[in-house]
Amino acid sequence: MNVAIVGATGYGGIQAVNLLKNNENYKISYLGGNKKSGSKWNDNFPFIPLDTDPLIEEISVENISDSANIAILCLPNGISSTLTRKLLNNNVRVIDLSADYRYKSLAQWEKVYSKEANKYKRNDDDLCKEAVYGLPEINKDAISKARLIACPGCYPTSALIPLVPFLSQGIIENEGIVIDSKSGTSGGGREPNQTLLLSECAEGLSAYGLINHRHTSEIEQIATFISGNEIELLFTPHLVPITRGMHSTIYGRLRDPGLTSDDCRILLDNFYRNFKNIKVLPVDIFPSTKWVKNTNQIFLSVKVDNRNGRIIILSVIDNLLKGQTGQAIQNLNILSGYPMDDGLELTNNFP
Amino acid sequence: MNVAIVGATGYGGIQAVNLLKNNENYKISYLGGNKKSGSKWNDNFPFIPLDTDPLIEEISVENISDSANIAILCLPNGISSTLTRKLLNNNVRVIDLSADYRYKSLAQWEKVYSKEANKYKRNDDDLCKEAVYGLPEINKDAISKARLIACPGCYPTSALIPLVPFLSQGIIENEGIVIDSKSGTSGGGREPNQTLLLSECAEGLSAYGLINHRHTSEIEQIATFISGNEIELLFTPHLVPITRGMHSTIYGRLRDPGLTSDDCRILLDNFYRNFKNIKVLPVDIFPSTKWVKNTNQIFLSVKVDNRNGRIIILSVIDNLLKGQTGQAIQNLNILSGYPMDDGLELTNNFP
Amino acid sequence: MNVAIVGATGYGGIQAVNLLKNNENYKISYLGGNKKSGSKWNDNFPFIPLDTDPLIEEISVENISDSANIAILCLPNGISSTLTRKLLNNNVRVIDLSADYRYKSLAQWEKVYSKEANKYKRNDDDLCKEAVYGLPEINKDAISKARLIACPGCYPTSALIPLVPFLSQGIIENEGIVIDSKSGTSGGGREPNQTLLLSECAEGLSAYGLINHRHTSEIEQIATFISGNEIELLFTPHLVPITRGMHSTIYGRLRDPGLTSDDCRILLDNFYRNFKNIKVLPVDIFPSTKWVKNTNQIFLSVKVDNRNGRIIILSVIDNLLKGQTGQAIQNLNILSGYPMDDGLELTNNFP
Amino acid sequence: MNVAIVGATGYGGIQAVNLLKNNENYKISYLGGNKKSGSKWNDNFPFIPLDTDPLIEEISVENISDSANIAILCLPNGISSTLTRKLLNNNVRVIDLSADYRYKSLAQWEKVYSKEANKYKRNDDDLCKEAVYGLPEINKDAISKARLIACPGCYPTSALIPLVPFLSQGIIENEGIVIDSKSGTSGGGREPNQTLLLSECAEGLSAYGLINHRHTSEIEQIATFISGNEIELLFTPHLVPITRGMHSTIYGRLRDPGLTSDDCRILLDNFYRNFKNIKVLPVDIFPSTKWVKNTNQIFLSVKVDNRNGRIIILSVIDNLLKGQTGQAIQNLNILSGYPMDDGLELTNNFP
Repeated sequence: MNVAIVGATGYGGIQAVNLLKNNENYKISYLGGNKKSGSKWNDNFPFIPLDTDPLIEEISVENISDSANIAILCLPNGISSTLTRKLLNNNVRVIDLSADYRYKSLAQWEKVYSKEANKYKRNDDDLCKEAVYGLPEINKDAISKARLIACPGCYPTSALIPLVPFLSQGIIENEGIVIDSKSGTSGGGREPNQTLLLSECAEGLSAYGLINHRHTSEIEQIATFISGNEIELLFTPHLVPITRGMHSTIYGRLRDPGLTSDDCRILLDNFYRNFKNIKVLPVDIFPSTKWVKNTNQIFLSVKVDNRNGRIIILSVIDNLLKGQTGQAIQNLNILSGYPMDDGLELTNNFP
Repeated sequence: MNVAIVGATGYGGIQAVNLLKNNENYKISYLGGNKKSGSKWNDNFPFIPLDTDPLIEEISVENISDSANIAILCLPNGISSTLTRKLLNNNVRVIDLSADYRYKSLAQWEKVYSKEANKYKRNDDDLCKEAVYGLPEINKDAISKARLIACPGCYPTSALIPLVPFLSQGIIENEGIVIDSKSGTSGGGREPNQTLLLSECAEGLSAYGLINHRHTSEIEQIATFISGNEIELLFTPHLVPITRGMHSTIYGRLRDPGLTSDDCRILLDNFYRNFKNIKVLPVDIFPSTKWVKNTNQIFLSVKVDNRNGRIIILSVIDNLLKGQTGQAIQNLNILSGYPMDDGLELTNNFP
Repeated sequence: MNVAIVGATGYGGIQAVNLLKNNENYKISYLGGNKKSGSKWNDNFPFIPLDTDPLIEEISVENISDSANIAILCLPNGISSTLTRKLLNNNVRVIDLSADYRYKSLAQWEKVYSKEANKYKRNDDDLCKEAVYGLPEINKDAISKARLIACPGCYPTSALIPLVPFLSQGIIENEGIVIDSKSGTSGGGREPNQTLLLSECAEGLSAYGLINHRHTSEIEQIATFISGNEIELLFTPHLVPITRGMHSTIYGRLRDPGLTSDDCRILLDNFYRNFKNIKVLPVDIFPSTKWVKNTNQIFLSVKVDNRNGRIIILSVIDNLLKGQTGQAIQNLNILSGYPMDDGLELTNNFP
Repeated sequence: MNVAIVGATGYGGIQAVNLLKNNENYKISYLGGNKKSGSKWNDNFPFIPLDTDPLIEEISVENISDSANIAILCLPNGISSTLTRKLLNNNVRVIDLSADYRYKSLAQWEKVYSKEANKYKRNDDDLCKEAVYGLPEINKDAISKARLIACPGCYPTSALIPLVPFLSQGIIENEGIVIDSKSGTSGGGREPNQTLLLSECAEGLSAYGLINHRHTSEIEQIATFISGNEIELLFTPHLVPITRGMHSTIYGRLRDPGLTSDDCRILLDNFYRNFKNIKVLPVDIFPSTKWVKNTNQIFLSVKVDNRNGRIIILSVIDNLLKGQTGQAIQNLNILSGYPMDDGLELTNNFP
């Protein structure tokens, strides 16, 4: 299976190279990146050497289609949509890391991503409807048959995996869910950016995008779909001075206030028993993002306030792996008929 | 006014030295610390030199009473209670940074701080009742007349200041309040501790003390007092790899869902208009802990989700200043008849 | 004395605002910055509020000359030279933080700063010759009479202060000096820059500019001047993932191998006895950059290898204060007839 | 091959578990650690799970000898010596990470490690003489036949690999070598330690152990052996606020000042052409410790000052892998007849 990595020099692309370079199921047949096109991969990344030391190529539908069966698009929002239809027409399946196909309607994308919508005039509502939301925990069958996969955002991944078991079984109330998330800076990408300079963000922590962060609507869309009821929730992202890692602290109310922490732990454990990369911790063991760094795992912990039937669920992921490219490789595996976690047996390098 | 700093070599004590050494209202007349007793201050802290280079002395009621009118106790929980009654009897007023006198009943302290209660047998329920909770924003008059001030915990400070205006006026519902707080590592103190090693906590973020962290009950006690109704809330602290700084993200529900973000901002602004160290930011400006680092300020920001009448309030403080010793100096000033913020005109050293 | 801060929104400018805003000797009469011109200072920096909340103005000679007696230029290399002659002609004295006037000949500047020399065609060799190198420890008299002061680079400051006493008295050999320096990221400025993103430089350390870093020639020029002999040395800067702080480890060989560590310590101590901001530590006490953070101090420590007469001198500074703007304020004070350290009594905020 | 990991819960032991758990050449047959003995591995390290979830056992010669052919001792200095002779007598080969057998004479160890020598009375000068210094780059044959391997310290590893090619061929002068090294905090171990608290060392950098750090004598012993001449050098370690990583900047003087940077690069490249984990970078590419993090690699870069024939060599390693346990596994492989780098094909997880 020949895979094109499009946008190879950003953090998503670099992870894709790392995850695929020694993976015998796939061959990296194309590396695309406009800024560095014409230069050799190993000159740019001497610390992630490729035996063949390929050129980084100009990004074009032709270049990609000539060399690959599947393209992983690690591109800014909006740009993916300029390539996708043509790639599909050339029989290249697309795994898109951007937000372009995460909504079931183009109109909603245009509303939420209005800035990008002004810049990129799209006409692919049909593809929005066709695209499969690439969260393997809920969509495995659809992913296996998809031409176009929209990989979830990092925040939605970290919020939905803990919530889905409770929402799908109606265990927590639809109303009043709070998701308080904390992300490392690599989620902001590799482009020069004053806000993400070490001098600006080290030794600091701040919230951003209150109420109307773009991922709120993405989480709500899937939560609504899962629960079968309209869900409105509060989601607050925070920037933390670490490179990789995302922690979500999720608050809800149990419909049955008699459930204990252990009941909820068992429920989570059962729900995900077939997912090797999901680990439910014993009650009162609270995970650090450091525990999943450099891995595709998600660790969950749950606790109930017995006084009032409220529940707190914690999740930690590596935002660049389970939150981004690791999940893309899960989708690639499902699409290609391999076990979901092939090539994702990654080691946590503590400390 | 002669001030004793008791427990001078921990982070609380060091801050107290820094805040008082050039303050003309006070004289540091005693520095106590058992581990370093007998050594010179400047040998221990060449970077915080004192002109007189005093000895660090053994901690004893006699030593303190002989030299000071007021003692600032920067000691671990439980130990303060072994000194306080005797100091008061010797006419030394006490500003206590520990939790020993934060509850109105000794029984509750014994329940929440059971580990310390096993070690230190106390018999001073009368002092628990007498002690004034040292949050100047709500207790200024009582503080000015107190013999014994129990300084609030850092988390309660960061949570109560944003909540008090809304609770006291019944603007948010008593039920369902969520406080998601993030603290730098200096809150854990200066004692050797594996969990707080840079190797263990850098590049990581984790929650701890879910549901039953000790500060939950402290926040609830004051919130209940302020609102006049029994308040049960969810409070989750997180450890963040920064040295100083605390961020609280507080979620509630408005009784009147028609209130706008700006209404709430104005309300906060009015409530704290006489407090120079409290700054309410314009709507959609979200503070970083870096903005208040090394200062006694608290920055607040508020936003309403108009879809459902929910409110998010953000607060940032320096956990060692407004969250601890800076607040103690406010109390010292009030007690001594000086303007509350005297000597607290600190500069934020950005970046 | 009316002072213009030109380039007010970079790190140099921000420090200048912080150092001057409550300094009664000076009035900030102008804040210049092209990118933010037209906006209010407090909107940009709510955490460093100015009572008058001035506008940030377009940078022009007229604007500056109309409002100020002295201009502090916090501008990129090359740009300072486009303003300086005109400002001097308008009787505005200039304290320049850039490298434009650090060399005694324009030709050398053009050689070392060839990139900037291509962009800015200069014709002010006379000003290069007139400018006084603003290191108060060696040039105090000349500074007091200067029209134009070229503030030293951060690395040269951290290297020269420890070396000058030994070079000027011929105590160490001219040959074979090694300066191994480590700098925080704020030395790289506030412009967006991939290399300085937290994601790129946290949890890493690297050297750069080996052999031919621009500051090598600056250090050599002054060291040669001080010693009276041509000095060629090795200087290696390293980037460290801290915001503020610079550490130089300097290696040399004693002419008299019988000198002890204590002899050298005393020599340093005597040399700088009149400089309040220079502190020579006892032998075997080695400073951390953290000890001088947010201050204008330099801490020195010296040790001799008795086996072979080699000497190691350590220095630490805050690269944005003694390494940049703090030193500029020393120069401003000297120029204006005030005590050198006025307004620089800054507190180290440990931890 | 059954391997005992003795001292399994410190950083060395944790790395050993990580490196061996999926290595088919070896079986972890014993995990020893006195503090955690009796508890399950997975309860202590849920993020590094072992399928068999073994007990952590009391450390005893019997326990180790009963279960293993080879013991990797990850213990504090001095303690290793209490186990080693008995293990060897029981036909357990020993790979020791401590300093106990790094010197060829017990007397020198007792001099340099006098504190430990006071506590542990040793009588094994014969073992000091028998032990092989486990630097595969110079001692591969001896390692393959050894009963007892003394793994090098992290600083000596990072200094010797760049120096050996130049010293062994007499290319640099023996006199005047300077090694300026910078280490992450994990080199200080996992025991609670005030100096290594994040609050104490984040946002700071400091030197320590000037002139007489214990590793000076270790480096000198090997450098003297390699060059055939007595070598005295200057070595200065620095503590940097990163978890993993070590950077050495090495200064020397070329005997033939006509050599260019490229000559020196080629020489390094040739010397290490058979070592897959050593990478010599092109001239003017300077490595970051981040490039080798979580790998067993060492990256080298070299540059000559053509003005005066001085040379600077840079090396970066992960102090816990090539600087410690990764190197131990190289030794284990050589001892066991496997290719040196088996199981050490580790991925750098940039960023």
